[in-house]
Amino acid sequence: MIVIMQPNASARQISDVIARIRAMGYEVHLSEGEAHTIIGVIGQGRTLDRENLSTMDGVQDVLRVTHPFKIASRYYHPEDSIIPLGTSLVGGQDLAIIAGPCSVEGRSEILEIAHAVREAGATALRGGAFKPRTSPYSFQGLGEEGLQYLAEAREQTGLAVVTEVMDQNLVPLVCQYADVLQVGARNMQNYSLLHAVGESQHPVLLKRGMSSRIEELLMAAEYILSHGNMRVMLCERGIRTFETETRNTFDINAIPALKHLSHLPVIADPSHGTGKWEYVESVSLAAVAAGADGLIIEVHQDPEQALSDGRQSLKPERFAELVRKARLVAQAMGRQVVEPAANAAKER
Amino acid sequence: MIVIMQPNASARQISDVIARIRAMGYEVHLSEGEAHTIIGVIGQGRTLDRENLSTMDGVQDVLRVTHPFKIASRYYHPEDSIIPLGTSLVGGQDLAIIAGPCSVEGRSEILEIAHAVREAGATALRGGAFKPRTSPYSFQGLGEEGLQYLAEAREQTGLAVVTEVMDQNLVPLVCQYADVLQVGARNMQNYSLLHAVGESQHPVLLKRGMSSRIEELLMAAEYILSHGNMRVMLCERGIRTFETETRNTFDINAIPALKHLSHLPVIADPSHGTGKWEYVESVSLAAVAAGADGLIIEVHQDPEQALSDGRQSLKPERFAELVRKARLVAQAMGRQVVEPAANAAKER
Amino acid sequence: MIVIMQPNASARQISDVIARIRAMGYEVHLSEGEAHTIIGVIGQGRTLDRENLSTMDGVQDVLRVTHPFKIASRYYHPEDSIIPLGTSLVGGQDLAIIAGPCSVEGRSEILEIAHAVREAGATALRGGAFKPRTSPYSFQGLGEEGLQYLAEAREQTGLAVVTEVMDQNLVPLVCQYADVLQVGARNMQNYSLLHAVGESQHPVLLKRGMSSRIEELLMAAEYILSHGNMRVMLCERGIRTFETETRNTFDINAIPALKHLSHLPVIADPSHGTGKWEYVESVSLAAVAAGADGLIIEVHQDPEQALSDGRQSLKPERFAELVRKARLVAQAMGRQVVEPAANAAKER
Amino acid sequence: MIVIMQPNASARQISDVIARIRAMGYEVHLSEGEAHTIIGVIGQGRTLDRENLSTMDGVQDVLRVTHPFKIASRYYHPEDSIIPLGTSLVGGQDLAIIAGPCSVEGRSEILEIAHAVREAGATALRGGAFKPRTSPYSFQGLGEEGLQYLAEAREQTGLAVVTEVMDQNLVPLVCQYADVLQVGARNMQNYSLLHAVGESQHPVLLKRGMSSRIEELLMAAEYILSHGNMRVMLCERGIRTFETETRNTFDINAIPALKHLSHLPVIADPSHGTGKWEYVESVSLAAVAAGADGLIIEVHQDPEQALSDGRQSLKPERFAELVRKARLVAQAMGRQVVEPAANAAKER
Repeated sequence: MIVIMQPNASARQISDVIARIRAMGYEVHLSEGEAHTIIGVIGQGRTLDRENLSTMDGVQDVLRVTHPFKIASRYYHPEDSIIPLGTSLVGGQDLAIIAGPCSVEGRSEILEIAHAVREAGATALRGGAFKPRTSPYSFQGLGEEGLQYLAEAREQTGLAVVTEVMDQNLVPLVCQYADVLQVGARNMQNYSLLHAVGESQHPVLLKRGMSSRIEELLMAAEYILSHGNMRVMLCERGIRTFETETRNTFDINAIPALKHLSHLPVIADPSHGTGKWEYVESVSLAAVAAGADGLIIEVHQDPEQALSDGRQSLKPERFAELVRKARLVAQAMGRQVVEPAANAAKER
Repeated sequence: MIVIMQPNASARQISDVIARIRAMGYEVHLSEGEAHTIIGVIGQGRTLDRENLSTMDGVQDVLRVTHPFKIASRYYHPEDSIIPLGTSLVGGQDLAIIAGPCSVEGRSEILEIAHAVREAGATALRGGAFKPRTSPYSFQGLGEEGLQYLAEAREQTGLAVVTEVMDQNLVPLVCQYADVLQVGARNMQNYSLLHAVGESQHPVLLKRGMSSRIEELLMAAEYILSHGNMRVMLCERGIRTFETETRNTFDINAIPALKHLSHLPVIADPSHGTGKWEYVESVSLAAVAAGADGLIIEVHQDPEQALSDGRQSLKPERFAELVRKARLVAQAMGRQVVEPAANAAKER
Repeated sequence: MIVIMQPNASARQISDVIARIRAMGYEVHLSEGEAHTIIGVIGQGRTLDRENLSTMDGVQDVLRVTHPFKIASRYYHPEDSIIPLGTSLVGGQDLAIIAGPCSVEGRSEILEIAHAVREAGATALRGGAFKPRTSPYSFQGLGEEGLQYLAEAREQTGLAVVTEVMDQNLVPLVCQYADVLQVGARNMQNYSLLHAVGESQHPVLLKRGMSSRIEELLMAAEYILSHGNMRVMLCERGIRTFETETRNTFDINAIPALKHLSHLPVIADPSHGTGKWEYVESVSLAAVAAGADGLIIEVHQDPEQALSDGRQSLKPERFAELVRKARLVAQAMGRQVVEPAANAAKER
Repeated sequence: MIVIMQPNASARQISDVIARIRAMGYEVHLSEGEAHTIIGVIGQGRTLDRENLSTMDGVQDVLRVTHPFKIASRYYHPEDSIIPLGTSLVGGQDLAIIAGPCSVEGRSEILEIAHAVREAGATALRGGAFKPRTSPYSFQGLGEEGLQYLAEAREQTGLAVVTEVMDQNLVPLVCQYADVLQVGARNMQNYSLLHAVGESQHPVLLKRGMSSRIEELLMAAEYILSHGNMRVMLCERGIRTFETETRNTFDINAIPALKHLSHLPVIADPSHGTGKWEYVESVSLAAVAAGADGLIIEVHQDPEQALSDGRQSLKPERFAELVRKARLVAQAMGRQVVEPAANAAKER
């Protein structure tokens, strides 16, 4: 940390700041410029909150030198983390493609979609059994019944199951059925939930909050990682801006930035990132070209009848086309993408 | 709801949309313009998701006519809701002034501040026993011990206690000690928590999420109200924007907007809304002039030593000055503000 | 400026950075922490762009120590700047109230409004003769004819005239008629225009761009000030955010922040800041309570017939009520507000 | 347009709104729902401002049915517009690659970069002779001298020249030297400049303002198109958000959205869109995969010495690598990309 004193700071104010820093167990390094005295904080002491120093008399600003996340950082773990998801590996050469409906709406519906997305080349199945809805009067999901249908779909298709857990009390239940616990955007800073999924040691797909900075997403991951659960996938799903033509603004910059700052795999969610099915394919291909390790896409046989998010869901045939093109882009980028057929073979 | 068809929509596409609307139990009203056919949806049917209609062939846009919240709406409840908070009433003539440290840091610290803010004119005491922190390595609060100290401070000062509950499992515990359950900004869409505080029937201070629209804050309130708990206070605490001079942008527009759209009382939090103690007084007075029913202010004897949020905390003497000015502004606005002395007298 | 090297920066990389800094005429101050070497830049050299240093090998970050504006800064000019506007002084004890229609729509219309706002207590008249419109097909203003009507209104009422100049070529023309040149939000970074109004030596009302940071507003003021034109008033008029209930988000924090960072007067524009007449009064009072030196308010006899911005215009009687309340709030804040009557007397 | 009346609107209020609409030359279509009366506006009348109707008594909301742009719309011109740029065509099969320094810094510098980017596969040269700078104390460009060097570079390399014009008075001068007039982000709503470049009939590269909505970018294009200048290229260059890890947030959604709403070619600027050279390649490939018709990239031989924007400039060898990969992605997308060699051959 670096403390910048005001141009007119007195010797007394400067020595007070130094005393405070030393009282926390740190050393200081003093630099007197023409206008400003600058105090560097050196060493390992107790937690030193930037805000406390910044309220001291004569202090103009306090600047942080390092990112606050540790285990999530690429400095800490220079190699890419690779996380198994069903028969594929996320974070390596292959491209993970997680697809399915927003909500599990019934047994036959989810089984039908599971087969459809598998044939189109998906490597995992998504579907919500517990749904966070803005309105208390909207469909809230089928609950455990939905989880059972997802498990049945996995049995029939071999696809791994990714589903959201909204409540720390339900983590044990969801772990029984799901291969990956999804933490939704609204819950990115629900620390009780982060604690519980961290303790679970189950793989986690952590979605970026709709107004969270990249650094805050990595701090949320740090909560999970600090419980020893290293299988965390980060998910960019669009941020909230002033633009109204799309539901969210997909932050494509976040993909190279997250890969640069962290070793964790990055999954892109263009369905929420755009909110309109017309733009999902373009943004999916963009995410692959930017270096994403996978895609999570909403697919529905009949989007007009979907109980939620129909506006951004693809029909299976459009999804198949998207997968075909995404593989071509991934190959152009030099990735060794496993063909759906080979994929199918491996499972037997 | 109103469906706007594309300029080139076919008769078949139009009749499909009409059929879908009727299948959900609604009537339609057709209007054929020069360019667009427009279909009005009339009556009371099953939940009709705007998104489903918008994916149908030939549909250009689907517009909502009414706000989605009901019990929170001023149409539903034209008079201001008035909620008792200790010896004062929030939402009426008086100005609620909730003050105290960000975190409860120890017994003597909280007792000392409680007396200080009471003397300065506060009507309630705030202080966090459970703290949501961006970093897993930061101070997380004293837990139940902190709640006990808050209760002791109430006994000594007569101030009502407002404290955050972060986890639905802790709602019963926090209810034992607190007069008002605070739901923090990060949890505004934690639906399990909203459900639990709704069931508790305890008064709630609901903070706006840092990137939540005004309508979404009212939908979060609706979750609590829909459990029959009508004692909800809304809290504007700043939103996230591109501005970097301040920690958040306090949305002053939200105060008249919330009073216009809803009957619930509105509390302003200029400490988080600015993030810098230098600007807290100005924005507090602004909030009162804009019609806020109360203020919640961070106060600390020694902000430089605070374990959290020191940067935005006022010293007690500055807080006393703020209260004095806030009362003058409230009086200029025609509010009948109860004097701290009168307030003290009432308690005996 | 402070250069923070990466944890693994080599001695060679460090010495390269030092050499570059010295080559620009500065001295360095070196500080070696446990993880990072930090290099302070000291003295007065040639322009040193933060960005250049930040691309050098081994550099992690480059932090600026001081704000980039100079003449606009309160360090440079600690006392409040006071700027005459008609018969009142802006930036001192009095409250400037600039009012009038969005556009000058005709001779009788502007004369009528001018008398109405003067009676209601306005100290200056606003009205656009040249209108920046998002659509090329919208009403673009009456041009010089509009300026003539404004001048006639001044003659009849004694009110100073504030009007927008959109184009540097029109600065001489507008100076002939107007007392204050308004630079609109869309033109805050139109440097040719800033240069021209700077050269004109005419008082300027500079509106904040809709996505400009506070620092950028002060840098735009610096462009004008650097031409020796010290009569600049800053105007907060709302910023663009994700909120859709209001047209813009009025940044109330900007008022104390601008007063803290700069000596220039600050005017608030709640008409654009909210975009809805229902909220204009509340936000006007808030701005006065936050310390604004004046208000600029859109007033129209018949907002429903206005050629632009009718949605946010007040009728004269509502405006009179607003002025009455604004004076009460200003007095509660300790300002000596000149009564409209006294004001009128002074003119004779 | 559609007018939604309040639930309690009186018959008189409804008939007043209808009278107003008819007075403007339109017909109405009335629809009475259970709660709301809805009035459709039909036909072609005089300009009817949504805001005026929305201020009438009893009106709840006024909704627009169509986008406000016309000539820029794909409804108006369903085929892609194709615009010649040097030897290539922008908007068709080929991928335009515009590269060069932020500023023209000297004769030898620009000639050297021009040759370097041409060899690396660029199809046009960028470079600023007039620079809009936030600070009045920063380097403002070489002016006409810079234009002369750009013209000399074109002669030597055959590359078309793209350069910014900041001031309507300079349009004739810049037209003498440049093949394409760039309108910068800060000037997207400088209507005098849009008018002048429209009149010039010279090809234009129009950059999106940093907080402009997609619709507003298309309205700015409409200003140019309405002067009969149909050769407009749109440029996405990142928008301003709360994220601080990158300088701007590149809005990848804007690429499919602009292609969907308009027939004009879309160019991506990942240099400004990210602000960090480390992320430029990833976001460039993403833009190509999303369907962009071209890229504009900042390249500098020695970014550390650049007089502006060094932080986001690529060295020529990294740029060559980017071009190679961009061609692979474009080919994977099915585009027929002209090889640099073929390109060179065509020129002779």
